[in-house]
Amino acid sequence: MKALTFDGKELKLTEIPKPVPTENEVLIKVAKAGICNTDHEIIKGYIPNFNGILGHEFFGYVKEAQDKNLIGKRVSGEINLACGTCEFCEKGLGRHCPNRSVFGIINRNGAFSEYVTLPKENVIEIPSEIPDERAVFIEPLAAACEILEQVKILPNHEVLLIGDGKLALLIARVLHSTGCKLKVLGKHQDKLETLGEVGISTVLLENFTPKTFDVVVEASGNSTAFELGLSCTKPRGTFVLKSTYAGGINFNPALVVVNEITMIGSRCGRFEDAVKFLQNHKPTLEKMIHSEFEFSKALEAFENSAQRNTLKVILNF
Amino acid sequence: MKALTFDGKELKLTEIPKPVPTENEVLIKVAKAGICNTDHEIIKGYIPNFNGILGHEFFGYVKEAQDKNLIGKRVSGEINLACGTCEFCEKGLGRHCPNRSVFGIINRNGAFSEYVTLPKENVIEIPSEIPDERAVFIEPLAAACEILEQVKILPNHEVLLIGDGKLALLIARVLHSTGCKLKVLGKHQDKLETLGEVGISTVLLENFTPKTFDVVVEASGNSTAFELGLSCTKPRGTFVLKSTYAGGINFNPALVVVNEITMIGSRCGRFEDAVKFLQNHKPTLEKMIHSEFEFSKALEAFENSAQRNTLKVILNF
Repeated sequence: MKALTFDGKELKLTEIPKPVPTENEVLIKVAKAGICNTDHEIIKGYIPNFNGILGHEFFGYVKEAQDKNLIGKRVSGEINLACGTCEFCEKGLGRHCPNRSVFGIINRNGAFSEYVTLPKENVIEIPSEIPDERAVFIEPLAAACEILEQVKILPNHEVLLIGDGKLALLIARVLHSTGCKLKVLGKHQDKLETLGEVGISTVLLENFTPKTFDVVVEASGNSTAFELGLSCTKPRGTFVLKSTYAGGINFNPALVVVNEITMIGSRCGRFEDAVKFLQNHKPTLEKMIHSEFEFSKALEAFENSAQRNTLKVILNF
Repeated sequence: MKALTFDGKELKLTEIPKPVPTENEVLIKVAKAGICNTDHEIIKGYIPNFNGILGHEFFGYVKEAQDKNLIGKRVSGEINLACGTCEFCEKGLGRHCPNRSVFGIINRNGAFSEYVTLPKENVIEIPSEIPDERAVFIEPLAAACEILEQVKILPNHEVLLIGDGKLALLIARVLHSTGCKLKVLGKHQDKLETLGEVGISTVLLENFTPKTFDVVVEASGNSTAFELGLSCTKPRGTFVLKSTYAGGINFNPALVVVNEITMIGSRCGRFEDAVKFLQNHKPTLEKMIHSEFEFSKALEAFENSAQRNTLKVILNF
């Protein structure tokens, strides 16, 4: 089968043997996969010693499984492959299992190949009412939904979201669903307009007058936004950090201490939550798709996706 | 009356008029006051334009008050003087009131003088069963108790406290009272021994084998402890920051994001909580008093307190 591999040096489309599922695994024929910033980060060296198939946002159709009811079903796959027995797994937090591998990221081949295998616990069926164009967003949408698992956001809360990139636009939809008083701060009029069209209040950075909010979510990936976000968080407020920054930042914790700010790091979320969100809110995400490529043109797709300010680039298998 | 003033340049014991209470204020004759690290920080320039009387840890006896029942009572005073009408005051969080002044710290004369005035809302009576040697710790003990208002600490939680200075030793007592599995990490055998004597488990930095804890409290004031504390916090764990560091630190937020750590800044607490703690737990704090000076020797007391590794230095009026 064809697969897009990265060996620490070169990204290449190559022919490798189709994976053989173990007894506990399901074989899935990939249908669509999205390119994530993390894929680009891995190519830049974010995961030392990465050697294998990239990709972790996808859906496909089950080809082989012990449970015959699964065969033919449209599914996606939770990317953290957990041990199932440690203290985190016992709390239902397999995505923090210290023994985990991560699909397409850590010690496990990912989604940019014609077939993938995943443990059956990781496989989640996608209800038929969710169209393909939304189903491909389940993984990043789960990461957006994670915020609501971690922070109670109420309708009377004033919330600032910093960022208008791929993840930020999904987070905006999730935050908006709480009924809170949301303001999205970005740098790109065209991206912010996609939010304006669904009734979300936005502001361009150049027009933003700093004030304080009950909750601030930093999802821009720009290290200057860290300081801005903290300074816009009310005393006793919550600063949710979705971004990491290459090389770290200079930080004076005095503001956190004096204002008793709660800073919460937020990463992957539950796929169930993303599926429910798509069912309940039916968000129109089509405008978030920048372009689509046949898998045979995956290298071209990566080049396209690497350009500044592109939204989601999709691979079709 | 005698007062210890700092004008941005010089600390001096001087004669100034006795303050006259307004209708809403209480006049208190100071009995004992403690020197805090914050007093030393102010002398080093922590509060730009500070000009007045230092000191915020004290108790004394009411001399004048509208409420005649208060007269003669032994009292301490909540240091945040809040407006009473803003959104924080309405939530009972006067210590985050943006319009506040802070006794001995921001725009308000403090405790190192023979008499002080405070709004009656700030005055709290000290029950007679609490001896003077403990009553003088009410303010910093309230700051220690603040942690329990912010973080739910359960008996099955493994908790690491970093620091063995004045505030850390009080925090150790407060954390120990929860029944959690507490380990106090310090650099000074003699200070740690005062905790060992009351059944608290301690470890010297040179003997510490890093592992992860559900909750880590950083109260050492040493910026290298920030990184150590974060790295010792479990995924989904809580890192409580009691320290500020001059000049800030270099910080890579990736660990916070990947491990979804909650970092909480923690500052002043409720005096009621500290008084209840002293009533319920009767902690022996006498060993935390390094030395006592007559107020006339306040400058000598400051020199003594500025030496490395001294615990609490008390002024007697």
